[in-house]
Amino acid sequence: MTVSTAVTGIGSLVTNDPSLMSADNPLGLVPDAAVVIEGDRVVWTGASSKAPTTDNRVDAGGRALLPGFVDSHAHLVFAGDRAAEFAARMSGRPYGAGGIRTTVAATRAASDDELAGNLARLLAEARRQGTTTVEVKSGYGLTVHDEARALRIAARQTPETTYLGAHVVAPEFADDPAGYVALVTGPMLDACAPHARWVDVFCERGAFDADQARAVLEAGVARGLTPRVHANQLGPGPGVQLAVELGAASADHCTHLTDADVDALAGGGTVATLLPGAEFSTRAVYPDARRLLDAGATVALSTDCNPGSSYTSSMAFCVAVAVRDMGMSPDEAVRAATLGGARALRRSDVGTVAPGARADLHLLDAPTHLHLAYRPGVPLTAAVWQAGERVRPEPAVA
Amino acid sequence: MTVSTAVTGIGSLVTNDPSLMSADNPLGLVPDAAVVIEGDRVVWTGASSKAPTTDNRVDAGGRALLPGFVDSHAHLVFAGDRAAEFAARMSGRPYGAGGIRTTVAATRAASDDELAGNLARLLAEARRQGTTTVEVKSGYGLTVHDEARALRIAARQTPETTYLGAHVVAPEFADDPAGYVALVTGPMLDACAPHARWVDVFCERGAFDADQARAVLEAGVARGLTPRVHANQLGPGPGVQLAVELGAASADHCTHLTDADVDALAGGGTVATLLPGAEFSTRAVYPDARRLLDAGATVALSTDCNPGSSYTSSMAFCVAVAVRDMGMSPDEAVRAATLGGARALRRSDVGTVAPGARADLHLLDAPTHLHLAYRPGVPLTAAVWQAGERVRPEPAVA
Ligand SMILES: [Zn+2]
Ligand SMILES: [Zn+2]
Repeated sequence: MTVSTAVTGIGSLVTNDPSLMSADNPLGLVPDAAVVIEGDRVVWTGASSKAPTTDNRVDAGGRALLPGFVDSHAHLVFAGDRAAEFAARMSGRPYGAGGIRTTVAATRAASDDELAGNLARLLAEARRQGTTTVEVKSGYGLTVHDEARALRIAARQTPETTYLGAHVVAPEFADDPAGYVALVTGPMLDACAPHARWVDVFCERGAFDADQARAVLEAGVARGLTPRVHANQLGPGPGVQLAVELGAASADHCTHLTDADVDALAGGGTVATLLPGAEFSTRAVYPDARRLLDAGATVALSTDCNPGSSYTSSMAFCVAVAVRDMGMSPDEAVRAATLGGARALRRSDVGTVAPGARADLHLLDAPTHLHLAYRPGVPLTAAVWQAGERVRPEPAVA
Repeated sequence: MTVSTAVTGIGSLVTNDPSLMSADNPLGLVPDAAVVIEGDRVVWTGASSKAPTTDNRVDAGGRALLPGFVDSHAHLVFAGDRAAEFAARMSGRPYGAGGIRTTVAATRAASDDELAGNLARLLAEARRQGTTTVEVKSGYGLTVHDEARALRIAARQTPETTYLGAHVVAPEFADDPAGYVALVTGPMLDACAPHARWVDVFCERGAFDADQARAVLEAGVARGLTPRVHANQLGPGPGVQLAVELGAASADHCTHLTDADVDALAGGGTVATLLPGAEFSTRAVYPDARRLLDAGATVALSTDCNPGSSYTSSMAFCVAVAVRDMGMSPDEAVRAATLGGARALRRSDVGTVAPGARADLHLLDAPTHLHLAYRPGVPLTAAVWQAGERVRPEPAVA
């Protein structure tokens, strides 16, 4: 028999439920609310005073409840860190052998258990901060063996796995980028496709150009993967247009956009995923979320968690920075970090708290969702349920 | 008999110990370290392999250990919050009756127990994030009764209490600012001085001018309080020069400085306390820490935690923003958040991990202190000792 649990006394419930959303209530807020879950699903939401009888009951004590964050862009299969490189960059000191190759070398040298352990630790860290869905990319292996290994490891911990063999040209192919694209679209894809849902490419000057990116994405599509694209991060470029043309689920970064890029995103089915952690940690200019929202584009926020350019797992931090520096209102930022991420992953079962949705709940130690931006840096997560399972915070040191 | 505890296996220990600090080692770092505490004091630091025998032993597992953060500027005796006002400001929407008067009204209306409970909750929240010393100001009462009440309540929870009757002119004196200054320097001071260590004034256009600020600070000094000054936040002004002239422990904000202001801070005994949370939450320009450091000033970082302009209790967040936006290196920012805060409070027993210091220890779930800036927004606090007492993280919802 399935056990039912009611969370009652919710001061303010963010539902993202279309039947409750309106211009005046863009998040489908319900005050003095309750949520009932059964097994891994939400089965009822409404006024706390009208909550049905259930097996268990948790009193939220007036706290705010939100859908779990959906982090639709993260690079979590890697070994080592690059703290010294970060410190040198932020201190204006030269730093010798840094960059992505450092992480590629460390990742190749790591055991399967080490990579799986690092991934599990980062997913647990994210979960403790209210994130209940995480996309995970490969891209630090850059060999047939190491890319397939990364995706096999990732697929055991999340269904949202992304083949990113085309992260950079592998060092062994520095003089033969065409050869590397042939590998990525051929044997590497063969080895990776069974473990991946998505195919991604870093379409940027210095990485892969429009023709190469198209080849990678089309090869992935032919193997049943759906495209997503690292686009227009470091400068203007063809990434966004290519993403929309190929029906990508998401164009990610979107920092340098022309009016035509904005129009394409607003008119197509591709979500604009903004990654403020990357601009924060590289002192780069932020993407203009306001422009995208005003044009009618769907915007998602995500961490880009990776050891080089954005080593944060905090969606709340991304919300706060998006409000401060990207022209988003607190409502818009919270929506982008929940429903926006779900859209970017083409998931209808997450990002909302509504009957039928997966029971991914994020209880804040605060009376409203506004506090995520209003109280930057403060760990506000009071409790998390993932697919109906209560996640208990564990202290790091016993 | 006093119990001794060794924390061993520390991957990287930030001591701020002058006997270990040098140009090459500005934080007095010790790798593979141990710390021994007895009662409320540190009694030994050194190589983990040479740690003496103790009653108890905690294995840090290679994690970094730092002095507890010293938050030398916070406004924590208040009631209510201003989330709706914050959201309106960040959304470009007009907002009617906001501002400090909202908090003054809520604070006056609150019971002693409510104010003490709010303060305890915020101090516990800070402690869970590694902050072991917090300065607390009055300033939301603005009557003799309510200012004295705030300081009585604060003094039961921290020794670092600051009389800030001169926060703004009380609404009842809107037409008689001179009368309010007479109150602040007369009967209100009489009622507050017994509960305060410091006297502070908001010296800014629209609040108190140079003459008024001088009167407030000199009256406080005459009652045995030491000055600190809210200075040069919203524009250039006389606050910094006044602070240095009167030997204030700290000039706080320092956002708009002339060269003469910088020279005065570099040449005097007044710490420049920078409060990036305020600029973050009001979309204001950040202070230039680089300029102050290059001139030779002592810099502290602090939260300015308050419900209007900076509702963060996270010193780690301030460190990350200071590195991103204020020209500080990670080492400089960590030092400013620990030793810098101690200097701003003229405390030699906190801000360091050295024999004789108070045992305020902050264990990070990370191998180095660099991760505070490298991993923005991520709650990295693994364990905290305050005056030798282990603070256990408590989940917010049982
Ligand atoms: Zn990325
Ligand atoms: Zn202040």
